[in-house]
Amino acid sequence: MSGAGAAADLGLLSPVRAGSPVEAAVGDVAWLQAMLDAEAALARAQASLGTVPEAAARTITRLARAELLDVRAVALAARETGNPVVALVSAFTAVVARQDGAAAEYVHRGSTSQDVFDTGAMLVARRALTLVRGDLDACVRRLARLAAGHRATPMAGRTLAVQAVPTTFGLKAAGWRRLVLDARDRLDRVARGLPVALGGAAGTLAGYLEYAAVDAGVTRPGVYGEELVRAFAAQTGLAAPGLPWHALRTPLADLGAALAFTAGALGKFALDVQLLSRTETGEAAEPAPAGRGVSSAMPHKANPVLSTLIRSAALQVPHLAAGLAQALLSEDERSAGAWHAEWQPLREALRLTGGAARCAAELAGGVRPDPARMRANLELTGGQLVTERLTAHLAGALGRAAARAVLTEAVACSGASGRPLVSVLGADERVRAAGLATERLAELLDPAAYTGAAAALTDRALTADR
Amino acid sequence: MSGAGAAADLGLLSPVRAGSPVEAAVGDVAWLQAMLDAEAALARAQASLGTVPEAAARTITRLARAELLDVRAVALAARETGNPVVALVSAFTAVVARQDGAAAEYVHRGSTSQDVFDTGAMLVARRALTLVRGDLDACVRRLARLAAGHRATPMAGRTLAVQAVPTTFGLKAAGWRRLVLDARDRLDRVARGLPVALGGAAGTLAGYLEYAAVDAGVTRPGVYGEELVRAFAAQTGLAAPGLPWHALRTPLADLGAALAFTAGALGKFALDVQLLSRTETGEAAEPAPAGRGVSSAMPHKANPVLSTLIRSAALQVPHLAAGLAQALLSEDERSAGAWHAEWQPLREALRLTGGAARCAAELAGGVRPDPARMRANLELTGGQLVTERLTAHLAGALGRAAARAVLTEAVACSGASGRPLVSVLGADERVRAAGLATERLAELLDPAAYTGAAAALTDRALTADR
Amino acid sequence: MSGAGAAADLGLLSPVRAGSPVEAAVGDVAWLQAMLDAEAALARAQASLGTVPEAAARTITRLARAELLDVRAVALAARETGNPVVALVSAFTAVVARQDGAAAEYVHRGSTSQDVFDTGAMLVARRALTLVRGDLDACVRRLARLAAGHRATPMAGRTLAVQAVPTTFGLKAAGWRRLVLDARDRLDRVARGLPVALGGAAGTLAGYLEYAAVDAGVTRPGVYGEELVRAFAAQTGLAAPGLPWHALRTPLADLGAALAFTAGALGKFALDVQLLSRTETGEAAEPAPAGRGVSSAMPHKANPVLSTLIRSAALQVPHLAAGLAQALLSEDERSAGAWHAEWQPLREALRLTGGAARCAAELAGGVRPDPARMRANLELTGGQLVTERLTAHLAGALGRAAARAVLTEAVACSGASGRPLVSVLGADERVRAAGLATERLAELLDPAAYTGAAAALTDRALTADR
Amino acid sequence: MSGAGAAADLGLLSPVRAGSPVEAAVGDVAWLQAMLDAEAALARAQASLGTVPEAAARTITRLARAELLDVRAVALAARETGNPVVALVSAFTAVVARQDGAAAEYVHRGSTSQDVFDTGAMLVARRALTLVRGDLDACVRRLARLAAGHRATPMAGRTLAVQAVPTTFGLKAAGWRRLVLDARDRLDRVARGLPVALGGAAGTLAGYLEYAAVDAGVTRPGVYGEELVRAFAAQTGLAAPGLPWHALRTPLADLGAALAFTAGALGKFALDVQLLSRTETGEAAEPAPAGRGVSSAMPHKANPVLSTLIRSAALQVPHLAAGLAQALLSEDERSAGAWHAEWQPLREALRLTGGAARCAAELAGGVRPDPARMRANLELTGGQLVTERLTAHLAGALGRAAARAVLTEAVACSGASGRPLVSVLGADERVRAAGLATERLAELLDPAAYTGAAAALTDRALTADR
Repeated sequence: MSGAGAAADLGLLSPVRAGSPVEAAVGDVAWLQAMLDAEAALARAQASLGTVPEAAARTITRLARAELLDVRAVALAARETGNPVVALVSAFTAVVARQDGAAAEYVHRGSTSQDVFDTGAMLVARRALTLVRGDLDACVRRLARLAAGHRATPMAGRTLAVQAVPTTFGLKAAGWRRLVLDARDRLDRVARGLPVALGGAAGTLAGYLEYAAVDAGVTRPGVYGEELVRAFAAQTGLAAPGLPWHALRTPLADLGAALAFTAGALGKFALDVQLLSRTETGEAAEPAPAGRGVSSAMPHKANPVLSTLIRSAALQVPHLAAGLAQALLSEDERSAGAWHAEWQPLREALRLTGGAARCAAELAGGVRPDPARMRANLELTGGQLVTERLTAHLAGALGRAAARAVLTEAVACSGASGRPLVSVLGADERVRAAGLATERLAELLDPAAYTGAAAALTDRALTADR
Repeated sequence: MSGAGAAADLGLLSPVRAGSPVEAAVGDVAWLQAMLDAEAALARAQASLGTVPEAAARTITRLARAELLDVRAVALAARETGNPVVALVSAFTAVVARQDGAAAEYVHRGSTSQDVFDTGAMLVARRALTLVRGDLDACVRRLARLAAGHRATPMAGRTLAVQAVPTTFGLKAAGWRRLVLDARDRLDRVARGLPVALGGAAGTLAGYLEYAAVDAGVTRPGVYGEELVRAFAAQTGLAAPGLPWHALRTPLADLGAALAFTAGALGKFALDVQLLSRTETGEAAEPAPAGRGVSSAMPHKANPVLSTLIRSAALQVPHLAAGLAQALLSEDERSAGAWHAEWQPLREALRLTGGAARCAAELAGGVRPDPARMRANLELTGGQLVTERLTAHLAGALGRAAARAVLTEAVACSGASGRPLVSVLGADERVRAAGLATERLAELLDPAAYTGAAAALTDRALTADR
Repeated sequence: MSGAGAAADLGLLSPVRAGSPVEAAVGDVAWLQAMLDAEAALARAQASLGTVPEAAARTITRLARAELLDVRAVALAARETGNPVVALVSAFTAVVARQDGAAAEYVHRGSTSQDVFDTGAMLVARRALTLVRGDLDACVRRLARLAAGHRATPMAGRTLAVQAVPTTFGLKAAGWRRLVLDARDRLDRVARGLPVALGGAAGTLAGYLEYAAVDAGVTRPGVYGEELVRAFAAQTGLAAPGLPWHALRTPLADLGAALAFTAGALGKFALDVQLLSRTETGEAAEPAPAGRGVSSAMPHKANPVLSTLIRSAALQVPHLAAGLAQALLSEDERSAGAWHAEWQPLREALRLTGGAARCAAELAGGVRPDPARMRANLELTGGQLVTERLTAHLAGALGRAAARAVLTEAVACSGASGRPLVSVLGADERVRAAGLATERLAELLDPAAYTGAAAALTDRALTADR
Repeated sequence: MSGAGAAADLGLLSPVRAGSPVEAAVGDVAWLQAMLDAEAALARAQASLGTVPEAAARTITRLARAELLDVRAVALAARETGNPVVALVSAFTAVVARQDGAAAEYVHRGSTSQDVFDTGAMLVARRALTLVRGDLDACVRRLARLAAGHRATPMAGRTLAVQAVPTTFGLKAAGWRRLVLDARDRLDRVARGLPVALGGAAGTLAGYLEYAAVDAGVTRPGVYGEELVRAFAAQTGLAAPGLPWHALRTPLADLGAALAFTAGALGKFALDVQLLSRTETGEAAEPAPAGRGVSSAMPHKANPVLSTLIRSAALQVPHLAAGLAQALLSEDERSAGAWHAEWQPLREALRLTGGAARCAAELAGGVRPDPARMRANLELTGGQLVTERLTAHLAGALGRAAARAVLTEAVACSGASGRPLVSVLGADERVRAAGLATERLAELLDPAAYTGAAAALTDRALTADR
């Protein structure tokens, strides 16, 4: 690796993605391979239109293998020319020339660095998104199971950090699943449209056309240009864009937005699991295979590692996406800097999101809710979290404002005196006058009986989005 | 305005949107009105299901007018409760109570702050997006006209800041249009899905159901819940969401991404116009009605004001969108901070993008390309920007590498000696040996004759996306 | 206000700053006043060097009052020229001319929009920072009191969301204070260096010099230029910069960074208070004057409003600061867009941070820790959170790895069986062999006795930074 | 490397830093080494206080070499525990144990992952900043030379993309230098304060103290704690912090801000060079050693590669810094995610800035200004860019508003008719009445004579900041 050892990033600072399939799919070798795939596909596309010899295209395709090049040497050379394609073309041409001098003439014929780089990037992105999708699918299935199993398991709903009214764990899990579905939709939409890049030096296809004219007598530039884009798309499996997009960076901005969404959606799931896992709450625990979550200092600890890693990704990707959105500000026919500022953020966003998706799939499959603890926590405040319900029952008799005032007072009195809320209310003449006897009060004050439409919402969500 | 004068933001620091229709559509009064519209629609939705008296809903609707409230007082009160809805409900209830005490009981019945705030925000967003769309439509039409009119007008294509190969102004304008179409697609997609918010205190609809049960004997919570969401959606014209989304912030993240995309797409157009407008390039000029672009110091200046303002928006919106993406990390059933951190960035992103769209529509209608200057600039380097073409013509005889070397040498020699490139090449034996006589060289060196498929690409883009 | 009502932002969407002194100090009227202050200071500076008549400078100063101008009209006109100064100069000149035609000739003499805008912005920033500092001072004092009072109050230290080892509330509060001190240092450093802007049209001072030469025969441009910068600085109280900084945006990037730091520092405090306030933890509560934290749905709720508002600011300011950092990429002698993209983010960062500081000062003064609840939470896991301590005591006899294993096993056994950790360990032969009898074990397992150097660290921190 | 090949990042997507010394200084191996350095320094610090045997500390120090560990294996294991230190400690302990079982007991004694990780990160940051500083020093020197040499070389000042008034190239270069000096100041300030991290499991130092008590009978925890921090600082050369900072992330936020500033400062330089390098402007060219700036398509091209790479970094770092600023929102005694989200952005910000500094040093040394082209461009508009000057000369006789009007009219007339501005003005009776004869007009219209205090400002800047 040309002494790259010291400089290499092998995942040490990014455990969320270390060892994940997406990490390998977006590494430098994979990226180099994708650019070679683009060169080979271009030659085959040209051959399919008769402007490059079939034999040359076959040789180029056969030799388009990353292991024949020195990726670090290409990386180092990129500093001289501003992008890795110039050195890649030169090294790859030499590889081909060693086998077949004639074929070597057809490497990168009529092309430009950005066509190869961008097409390679789209191939990498598509491969990575396929992996991410698999993990999101698993998440969706596992969260559905979790939601269905706990559709009516009561727990405290919490707003602004404190207990609000009851909800169910199933509704919570259905919400996590909904976000993952939203993420999957957004990624799918982007993945379907990822285009080949084909523009030539300034987006006019002129180089491709000129070689086609000189080499093969092609005369109708517009028609040939369109055919070449389609053939290139067919050879790569990517979409055929309406216009060369060297400086129209829709695909990058879209990728950034969809990845930031996905990381954020998974981050919400992780953040909730963390809050439920807090020692004092204890309503959920992460899956804990041997060695997971171990601390270097404390033997008792079982850290919520998966949710921590997911959250670490969710905190990073939006910033990377902001950079990709700003790359829309690409001046001229190719930007002197905005283009180059997309590369590493795109990779980083892909592998962080991919790592997060893998962790989330595992977390969704293994998170262990604790219904008993949920119930215990519901009892913590002696029914305070159903005061909204009592307001409704007193409003008819007292008017809503007065009903609220009665409850606010009772909560304060119960808090100050330590008497149960049911006793305080049972002793309140206004409450009795409203027809609520102590027995009925006790019923109404049962948090588990006030989960509204939570179960029904869960059912419908699981049915609707299947 | 309760002494708000000093604190008010009236657009002084944001000329891109000062005076624009979107600015008014997202101002505090408009936002207050949208929240009142949400309250009124909720009452009507409940009335349509028989759980609120029709007369109460009518009174509530009739009085839901921002001018009856003191927006600054509501803003100040929001500091005590964390959001403006608590004070709004209190003030609005008082307004209704002054006219009809019974109706006042039904204001905000069973509801929670976030339902009203979020529904109001969606109404504001939809209104703003409608205005933005109008300006994007105008952009698309005007850029199409520009592209069609200059489909074959040759100009220098520029990559990495220097002249590369020729292109046409029409292709450039078609690219700007393509980005605006992409932006319009993304905004439309988001606009179609903007949902009402209806969840009650913790997303279970419990408050709505309890009042419905107590007031009107409604017994099937799941069914009523679903009907209420649909009725609310019908009353507002917004979409009915699958689940309450207090802590599932898809709509906000989507809005952020689509607005960042739009601002960036317009920013690319603006940036290119600025570069073409530079004194030394002079290939385009902004429309210049009287007073536009005037300098406080220099009588001669005509600043490219529209593109400057558009660019100022394009630089800001991606940062705001990053914040909105991060708001996906909303903990629990309602976040203690992430929700609140969405509001101002959403408004700012809407009005910056709206202002940019308005400026862009004007710019697209008035930008004046200068074909003569384009041609003159093409001649600046004596044919250097078609060396790619000559390489293709020499490659057959010399091989591509040798052909490149001949051209690189010739360019250097021409630069050093001041001799025209055509003479240097004409005198080169290798060139002559390749069969390129001086006359043919001169033809090949005409930049205007090397625009590749630019015109055809332009035509197809204009046809395809119509 | 020229019909600005609809478009105005009066704080409805930003409760963290609504009604705060900083909000008023950075509003449009205040900004307009600051720009007028810059115009007046410039005239006085020129007068002090004899290049503008004293009487004219006096008249200009006397009339430089925002209430004499229509701020909305200036805002609207800014759209035509790209910045508000052109219209401000025109309107202000008219105001002066109505009183004294001769003086009007000296308004903005030799100047350029950016000199006035940037100097005005620095005046606004300085005024806002003074207010922020006052609130940070209050925070520091109040947090010091809190830390001193609870230097030895034991509570659970929490890492990765779960209980780790004990700490003290005093050390936690000392940490919050340390961050506020760090913020104060950073703001002070920036505040001290805020410079006047004086460059003329392209940063050469040429306009100032030419008028000085024509009007007053000034002949040594370098000397006069330097004197003028100094005089302007003296008149405003701002610093004299080494070079005109129209396109050298150090002050803006510095302001952004210091404000993001401050908002983040306060956000850490707020986030911790929220976590301590969670119903299940209950170790702290926000100050709760009447009406604070009220919910629109739930009578029992007391939302942690101050920490919510602070956190809402902390989530927004870093994005604004990123935009200000990027404004360093200001092309040429004045940017066509990057400059304009600074204005609103700067204001927003100032008022969000200012609002957060005000809330934090109140929170620091009123947050109520609950030592009893802290102690109860320490007992929740039956001594697990001091297993680190026992490891140290067993390591001598068993070796560290074996000691860890014993503890891990004991924690698991205690968890599974429900037996207290002290019994499980007391019955373990290896533990007994290591010389730890049950009594000593009980001592070692007391969480309150294992707070390390927490109290000493607190003391030192309070002494050192005073 | 345990099959890390595919996943490795070897710089292919980041040419700005590929092969730079900073890249190697922040790579995974370097980071691993720095963490081992922290472990060794900790052992020596403890030995210096008598709580760890000297011999053990020596052995630990001798074996603390990254090449003895498998960095990829550590990276992969980090996924199970959330950070790489747990696996590092385990692997390193095994390495030591193979040589000296007794010494192995003292590896990481009393410590916690974050102490080691954060101290390692500070060591890495310091080493990287030293390298960055060297390149900034070179920039400063070279830009000073450039500025001094061209202190009076006239060129067009440009504002809002168009020519404004003249300036000098020296003043422009002095501005670039000023920004680099500002960056150096900010980095130096941060570098000086980079602290060791020493807190133990929850920031109380309890683990360190307990082992010290058990192993060596240390009794005064506060005193020993303070001594240990100082000894650790002495062993690493880092600063001794006032408080453990596991959750007080000042150093990270400061690093982010200073790196974003530096990247932005260099980006301004790069952006200006790009604009001067545009074919139509041609006032500067990048240094062009053989192979630099070569295009894969166009033989004639010499791309401004260094400025492109610098700009690519400048566009990325502010987003990374925003993430680091947000990491201030670290909950509890150690965050479950915010901490982990700092690592890769910190490294990326260091290596991007380091790469940019290296490119900038080369660019500053080799950029070639073209005074003849500057002068030619000054003539392009026939004196329009000194209309400000003429206004000053006419203002006395006509009043400023009338003078402006005369000039505006003359510029329009010259533009429409093609007559030189000097002729148009010379023929204007108002101008003649004001005493400006054609000869004097010609003098005043010479752009090279209207550079204001540019040379003096340059001189002073170079003197003042030396």
